[in-house]
Amino acid sequence: MVSGIITITTDFGERDPYVAMMKGVILTINPDARIVDTIHQVPPGSILEGASIIKQTYQYFPSGTVHLAVIDPGVGGKRRPIAVLADNHLFVGPDNGLFWPVIETQENSEVIHLCDKMYWMREISPTFHGRDIFAPVASHLSKGIDPFLMGEKVDNPITLANPLPRENSSDLVGKIIRVDHFGNLITNITREHLNLFPESKGLEIRVGTLTLKKISTTYGDVSEGEPLALIGSSNLLEIAINRGNVAHDLGQEFKVGTKVTIEFH
Amino acid sequence: MVSGIITITTDFGERDPYVAMMKGVILTINPDARIVDTIHQVPPGSILEGASIIKQTYQYFPSGTVHLAVIDPGVGGKRRPIAVLADNHLFVGPDNGLFWPVIETQENSEVIHLCDKMYWMREISPTFHGRDIFAPVASHLSKGIDPFLMGEKVDNPITLANPLPRENSSDLVGKIIRVDHFGNLITNITREHLNLFPESKGLEIRVGTLTLKKISTTYGDVSEGEPLALIGSSNLLEIAINRGNVAHDLGQEFKVGTKVTIEFH
Amino acid sequence: MVSGIITITTDFGERDPYVAMMKGVILTINPDARIVDTIHQVPPGSILEGASIIKQTYQYFPSGTVHLAVIDPGVGGKRRPIAVLADNHLFVGPDNGLFWPVIETQENSEVIHLCDKMYWMREISPTFHGRDIFAPVASHLSKGIDPFLMGEKVDNPITLANPLPRENSSDLVGKIIRVDHFGNLITNITREHLNLFPESKGLEIRVGTLTLKKISTTYGDVSEGEPLALIGSSNLLEIAINRGNVAHDLGQEFKVGTKVTIEFH
Repeated sequence: MVSGIITITTDFGERDPYVAMMKGVILTINPDARIVDTIHQVPPGSILEGASIIKQTYQYFPSGTVHLAVIDPGVGGKRRPIAVLADNHLFVGPDNGLFWPVIETQENSEVIHLCDKMYWMREISPTFHGRDIFAPVASHLSKGIDPFLMGEKVDNPITLANPLPRENSSDLVGKIIRVDHFGNLITNITREHLNLFPESKGLEIRVGTLTLKKISTTYGDVSEGEPLALIGSSNLLEIAINRGNVAHDLGQEFKVGTKVTIEFH
Repeated sequence: MVSGIITITTDFGERDPYVAMMKGVILTINPDARIVDTIHQVPPGSILEGASIIKQTYQYFPSGTVHLAVIDPGVGGKRRPIAVLADNHLFVGPDNGLFWPVIETQENSEVIHLCDKMYWMREISPTFHGRDIFAPVASHLSKGIDPFLMGEKVDNPITLANPLPRENSSDLVGKIIRVDHFGNLITNITREHLNLFPESKGLEIRVGTLTLKKISTTYGDVSEGEPLALIGSSNLLEIAINRGNVAHDLGQEFKVGTKVTIEFH
Repeated sequence: MVSGIITITTDFGERDPYVAMMKGVILTINPDARIVDTIHQVPPGSILEGASIIKQTYQYFPSGTVHLAVIDPGVGGKRRPIAVLADNHLFVGPDNGLFWPVIETQENSEVIHLCDKMYWMREISPTFHGRDIFAPVASHLSKGIDPFLMGEKVDNPITLANPLPRENSSDLVGKIIRVDHFGNLITNITREHLNLFPESKGLEIRVGTLTLKKISTTYGDVSEGEPLALIGSSNLLEIAINRGNVAHDLGQEFKVGTKVTIEFH
C-alpha cells in the first residue's frame, strides 16, 4: 500500500537548514524512508505555483508515495494541518489550497484534519509546522500508519481559484504561469483547450511583441535563435526559442502574468 | 550504535561536482550509507556560520548519525583533520572551530586527531581533503568502525569565539547573524537571554530604522506587510514581516552584523 | 555487476520539477535505486561543460553505477538516444558528444543505440526524453538488465572537439574552462601537460593582468589575498586567491575562454 517514498516540496530555498531538519525528523521516525526533493524554489508563499508543481509531479511517483508540501504563509494561525488521500497517493501539508488541484480532479479523494498530537513532535514551534507536524506525520504515513487514525475526516478543504484561460468563439485568452530555468514561458493553456477549436484554417498566437502562426512539435523545428510555440512535457502550451532563452532574449514583458492570446481563423 | 546516515554540510555551492565526488567516495566504501545534504550554501570560508548550522541541525537526526562538514579554508595546511563524538553523534571535518559549539556544550565529548591513513583515499589532493580524507572517514564511521582506531585522542581542539549578546542592567545588545531565504533576520539573542529580564513593564526592540514594542508568537499575529519580532524555530529572536521580506522591503541596513538592541522598561 | 546507484547530471537548474519527475520514473521501475545528483547547473545546452563534469566525476562511484546525463538541446530531433559501457560504468543520454571524453579514453567501450521502446515510458514527449526515455532506461539498467537487449551496437558515436592546450617549444597556451563556486579559475592544462617541460629554470604563468612565477601546492602557500597557481583536485591547473575569489576580486577578464600562457625558461 505505501511505497516508503516521501517527496518534499517547499518554498524554503537552498541556503537554510530547514529542509535538512525535516529530513532528520523523518529519518528518526522511519529510518527506511526514501526522501526525494521535488523543489524548494517555489516563490515564497506562492500557493498557486506550489499547487501546480505538486499536481504535475506526483503522478510520476509510485502509488503509495507520501507528498509532503510546505508552502505555508499562514503557519501558526488558524489554518488546519491536513492529510489527503487521492489517486492512491498521500499528501501532507497546510489546508490552504495547496492540494486543491489534486482533490478537485480526483473522485473519492478524502481529506483528514490532522489533530492527534501523538503523531507530531513533542514541542511545536509556532513558525515551523513543516518540521514539527508535517514531517513526522509524513514519516508515520510512509510506514503505513492509517491516516484516519491521525485525525478527523473533513468535507470542506480550502479551495484554490486556478485561473483558467477564457474561451471565446474564435479565440482563447490565457497567461504565462511560470518561466522555467531555460527561460521557456509556460502558459495555462492546455492541449485540451486547444482541441476545442478546429485547427483547419490556422491560428495566430500573440504574447507581448511576439506573433507565432503555428504550434511546433519540438525546439529544433525552427532555426537556432527563432521563437516557437509548442505543447510542453506537462501538456501546457509553451513559448520558447530554439537554443535560446525567451525571458532573457526578448525582454521583460515576458513574465508570469503576461497575457497570451490565440486567435483561430 | 550507528544510524547509517551521513549528513553533509559544505560551502561548495550547487554548481560544481565536488559534493557528488564525496558521495561517490562514501558509497564506494559503504553502499548502504544514506546521505542527506544539510546545505552547501554556507558563505565560502565562513566557519562561524557553518558551525551555527551544524549545531542547530544535528540534533534532529537519529543518534549515531555522522555529520560530515567541509568549510575548510585552511585545507592542505597545518590544521588537523578530526572526528568528534558528542551527544551520541559523530562529526568529521577540519579542526578549525566548526564543531566547537557542539563540543563546548556537550559534556564527555571526545576529539580524535585523524591520522591513520588506512581510512583515507590512497592519493590525497592538497586542496580537497573533503573528498580524500573526510568522506572516506565518514563512510567508515557510518559502518560502525570505532573512531578511536582512526587516530589519537586530543584535548585541545580549536575553539571558536561565538559572539554572545551583551547583557546590561536594562538592555541586551545583540546582532543579526543570518538572513534567511524569506528575508527574516535571525539574531544571536536566544529565548534564554530574554528570560533573564522580567517582561512585566514591556520592552522596545530597535534594529536599523525599526522599533518594535513586543515579541509576537507567529507571523500572522500582525497584519500583512507589518514587521514583528518573534522567537523562531531554533529559539533565536527573529525580525520578520508578515508575508514580506525584511531584507528586501526595509533596505540594506538590515544585514548580517547589524546591531539589535532590546531595552526593558 | 551493477551497483544500484544512478547519478543524474543535467542543465535543468533547481527551480523546476523536471529532475523530480525523472526520479519518480526511476523509483517506479526500480524502487531500490539509490539516486545521487551530480549537478543540475550545467550551463543550458553546454555539452562541453557537461562532458567534462561527467568525465571528472564518474570514477569516484562504484563500478556498475549508471550515469544518467541530460544536456540535450537537440531533444526531439534526429540525435540518437544511447547507452555507453566504459570502464565498468554505464552511461545513458543523448548521442551528442556528452560521453565522448569517456569513450575516447577507454578501450573496449561500447555504444548502444537505444531503440527498444519496451524500456521507455509509454508516451514520449518530444521535449522531455530525460523523463520518458533516459530515466526509464537508466532505471532498468540499474536493475541489471543487459543494455544489449535495449538496442543495437553502433560504432559512430558523435565526437566532441575538446580544445587541448597548444604546446610550443618553450610555452603552453591553454584557457580557462570553468570558474568554480569559489571563483577559482580551472584551466584545460593538466599535470601531464606541465610534465612535458623540464621545470629546472622556472616558469611564468600569464592570465589577464596576472603574472605568476611558480606552481604552489595549496592555497595557504601564499598570504591571504595573494594569487597563486596550483594543480587542483582534478589534476587541472587552477588559478586562485588564498581565501579570495579571483573572478570577483580581479575583474571581468577572468572568465571562461580567457587565454592562459605558461612560458618555460
